[in-house]
Amino acid sequence: MPRPLLSLGIAVPLGALLAALPADAEAAVPEPRTMDAILAQAPAGDWRSPDPENLLVMTLDAGRVVIELSPDHAPEHVANLRILAREGYFDGLSINRAQDNFVVQWGDPYGDDPAKARPLGSARTSLPAEFSTPIRDELPFVRLPDVDGWAPEVGFSDGFPVGRDPAAGIQWLAHCYGIVGAGRGNAPDSSNGTGLYVVIGQSPRQLDLNITTVGRVLEGMPLLAALPRGQGPGGFYEEPALRTPIRRIALAAALPEAERPRLERLDTASPSFAALVEARRNRAEAWYLRQAGHIDLCNVPLPVRERPGR
Amino acid sequence: MPRPLLSLGIAVPLGALLAALPADAEAAVPEPRTMDAILAQAPAGDWRSPDPENLLVMTLDAGRVVIELSPDHAPEHVANLRILAREGYFDGLSINRAQDNFVVQWGDPYGDDPAKARPLGSARTSLPAEFSTPIRDELPFVRLPDVDGWAPEVGFSDGFPVGRDPAAGIQWLAHCYGIVGAGRGNAPDSSNGTGLYVVIGQSPRQLDLNITTVGRVLEGMPLLAALPRGQGPGGFYEEPALRTPIRRIALAAALPEAERPRLERLDTASPSFAALVEARRNRAEAWYLRQAGHIDLCNVPLPVRERPGR
Repeated sequence: MPRPLLSLGIAVPLGALLAALPADAEAAVPEPRTMDAILAQAPAGDWRSPDPENLLVMTLDAGRVVIELSPDHAPEHVANLRILAREGYFDGLSINRAQDNFVVQWGDPYGDDPAKARPLGSARTSLPAEFSTPIRDELPFVRLPDVDGWAPEVGFSDGFPVGRDPAAGIQWLAHCYGIVGAGRGNAPDSSNGTGLYVVIGQSPRQLDLNITTVGRVLEGMPLLAALPRGQGPGGFYEEPALRTPIRRIALAAALPEAERPRLERLDTASPSFAALVEARRNRAEAWYLRQAGHIDLCNVPLPVRERPGR
Repeated sequence: MPRPLLSLGIAVPLGALLAALPADAEAAVPEPRTMDAILAQAPAGDWRSPDPENLLVMTLDAGRVVIELSPDHAPEHVANLRILAREGYFDGLSINRAQDNFVVQWGDPYGDDPAKARPLGSARTSLPAEFSTPIRDELPFVRLPDVDGWAPEVGFSDGFPVGRDPAAGIQWLAHCYGIVGAGRGNAPDSSNGTGLYVVIGQSPRQLDLNITTVGRVLEGMPLLAALPRGQGPGGFYEEPALRTPIRRIALAAALPEAERPRLERLDTASPSFAALVEARRNRAEAWYLRQAGHIDLCNVPLPVRERPGR
């Protein structure tokens, strides 16, 4: 993102950045690299293809939204979401809420009315709260070195931004931009995955440990974040015609191979990701005159790309 | 924002919250109050009307955007912006960029082309960088008690979110949602106010002390934050037809009294604002099962309302 804020010129071509690296770069002290250079140079092994059993593919008239679910952080909700998607529960429902600088939310607009609510099919109507899960050694955790006011430790596990409290032995998927959660009423166990929201503004970390987070958007955030804001309380649309139709939410594993998203995300346990974090704590781009020497959990980009080849 | 995430029911009416307060509340230990209750109970003296010399009124086809400029933090840029607005510099220009989770930017799309750029009239073409200003005792500063990774101290001055470095003797307007800055090229003194941007995503605090921030949006953020994202590099629109026309940007002081925005904002040095901060660090709403006991600078709401009366 060189010269990001005034000039209309495009970014410095990647080739120029690569050419600027000395031929013996690996033997010498490494030059500071930009994120773009790090991604261009990341070996294929530093990228991961998400499990199709964890991918929801939402079809809107404006395009496709792909969500990666995290069974590590919300196993019961993810299991229910797979059933809901396989049975077509969301198909024909709508996006019902867009609250500026907070969330966009979708599901059954009549879900609170037993006479009009869509039946849940084989899915469970009630689930336990999954606000956190026990810390497990087998789940990789790359800790961010920087202070965080909301959690004793923050970092990344398998592509997701995570908070941890080692004293309490718990971890949770943190409310960053693009994180998806399961709406609930006042009862902690009142979510079942039929109503989902995504963060579209400043990270509302006060929701952490108060609600079940289930995954994150890998593709399509601009389609959700640019929806017109609702004028009703909480950003709900006051007229049904203002809601955005959801044509389908499918589980990728249930789609023919050719229709599955061909996405991969940078492995957050890889050397490339470690370099990326450092490149964002201290920017190599010439535009930056002062280095922050810091980054917040929710400012760290989690790169996603189309899978190369074929 | 009680029951915000699943139910379609509206918020608890303010009346119900007020009625729940005991009649002798002031003599007793105060009940925890929600932000809505604090705002409903704030005395008139806790609100401030911005100086019309500091208000920019942007007219889009979709509605009005009102920006409060901060001469405390960028005196030279604000002086130039008053001239640009009084002379109609922005009228008929456009919004040229919307980068998801970053900024929306407007100005002269041909500003980099001397042959096509709109003349600046009486305004200055070059200004000093105003990335920070010296800390001045006469400017009130209410410090937030919570840790911040980007600045030694953070808090609020006269309605704006501010970072401070007492050792260096400097303060600056921090890059929170809705903050407006003056785009620049790679040279630190290459901004003059003709290109402005507003933060529409997770607070990009790495820009702090790297660019001149000039004010914040008091009204109309949903109009800017919900613009379709540009498909070009950096979120610039690739086709001129995709740009949003700016019909006018006027200085409120230059408008007839009846056309000036009748807005006021909560005084950040008032007891009501102190109560609000505490009400957001620890939530009184029944929906919250766990209190964060913390808030980040950019999560603190800065309330604005229509001025009551007449």
